[in-house]
Amino acid sequence: MSLSSQLLENAVDQLATLPGIGRRTAMRLALDLLRREAHEVARFSEAIRRMRDEVRYCEVCCNISDQPKCAICRDPGRDASLICVVEDIRDVIAIENTRQFKGLYHVLGGVISPMDGIGPDDLHTRELFQRMEQGGVREVVLALGGTLEGDTTSFYLNRRLAEAGMLVTAIARGISVGADLDQADEMTLGRSIVDRKPYEHGIRR
Amino acid sequence: MSLSSQLLENAVDQLATLPGIGRRTAMRLALDLLRREAHEVARFSEAIRRMRDEVRYCEVCCNISDQPKCAICRDPGRDASLICVVEDIRDVIAIENTRQFKGLYHVLGGVISPMDGIGPDDLHTRELFQRMEQGGVREVVLALGGTLEGDTTSFYLNRRLAEAGMLVTAIARGISVGADLDQADEMTLGRSIVDRKPYEHGIRR
Repeated sequence: MSLSSQLLENAVDQLATLPGIGRRTAMRLALDLLRREAHEVARFSEAIRRMRDEVRYCEVCCNISDQPKCAICRDPGRDASLICVVEDIRDVIAIENTRQFKGLYHVLGGVISPMDGIGPDDLHTRELFQRMEQGGVREVVLALGGTLEGDTTSFYLNRRLAEAGMLVTAIARGISVGADLDQADEMTLGRSIVDRKPYEHGIRR
Repeated sequence: MSLSSQLLENAVDQLATLPGIGRRTAMRLALDLLRREAHEVARFSEAIRRMRDEVRYCEVCCNISDQPKCAICRDPGRDASLICVVEDIRDVIAIENTRQFKGLYHVLGGVISPMDGIGPDDLHTRELFQRMEQGGVREVVLALGGTLEGDTTSFYLNRRLAEAGMLVTAIARGISVGADLDQADEMTLGRSIVDRKPYEHGIRR
């Protein structure tokens, strides 16, 4: 694809760096932006630049925040003795949307992945251990993805935290609510049988 | 979805204005940008703003261009007596990629669409008629989409141009090369039968 404008070509190149956006889609997005008013495009471009330049991370839980402490950590109604460890802020949003968790979070910013050269020190693990040392934490819930990297990270954190005498739990894995058994993969179905619970109990805790 | 950062929220809102990008995808794009170096994001944001602010349109054919005349109109090797009328610059790119057209273009910037309040005067039709008046044009090829709006626009342009004694042609509609007949829609198959040509002829012109 050779374009008659270097300016358009640059914009398409940049849009095509976004995940899941190929050059054809990038072209469609660029032409859409080109059709808008200049002040609208300036607002678009400015919102992205400002996000990257001005965004801060909560000094307690490493969640994204416009203030030194995020809204969740500032909320006195939440249980500060319960900390849920997640990979990134999308997980915070997903868990918040369930309205089932009233504790605080700790955002690792990734998971341990030796293949990508990401070790524990590349994540916000030090900040997590510091929170533990400051005391007042009763339980840490590991809510990491069920991938190899997620499991490795859970294993590492459990060992470090259990050594320090912390109660460490993990979110339940099993068949999705409303799903058919024959649709589930073997690993999940197997785990849901191993992790079976007394019928009356319903939801744990 | 309530986010803990207004800066992130603004960026997600803006990304979600792009066609085909929902809020969930916009969130993924924003987090990807957030993970990049600040200078990379500045380059991204700048490329988009500059495209909108600095891009120009060719004074001859209304194609996008960084100079007063676009590279195609400046090319002395092209046949200036043959003009292909297209809806937007994506069509120019598509036709250029075929390497089958050696004339010049005229980019209308849209098609006539009474439903959207777009009439002939909202398109670059005046510039097209001016090119005709300046003389030297032998044939105008209408290469507009096969939609109702495309057909309306072709009909309008043909009437205006034929009145002025111009030879007006339209790109062939028919079964795609390599396609099965039973996969084609009725309109296309019907048109390909009505527009049948002597077998030896092969490609017209």
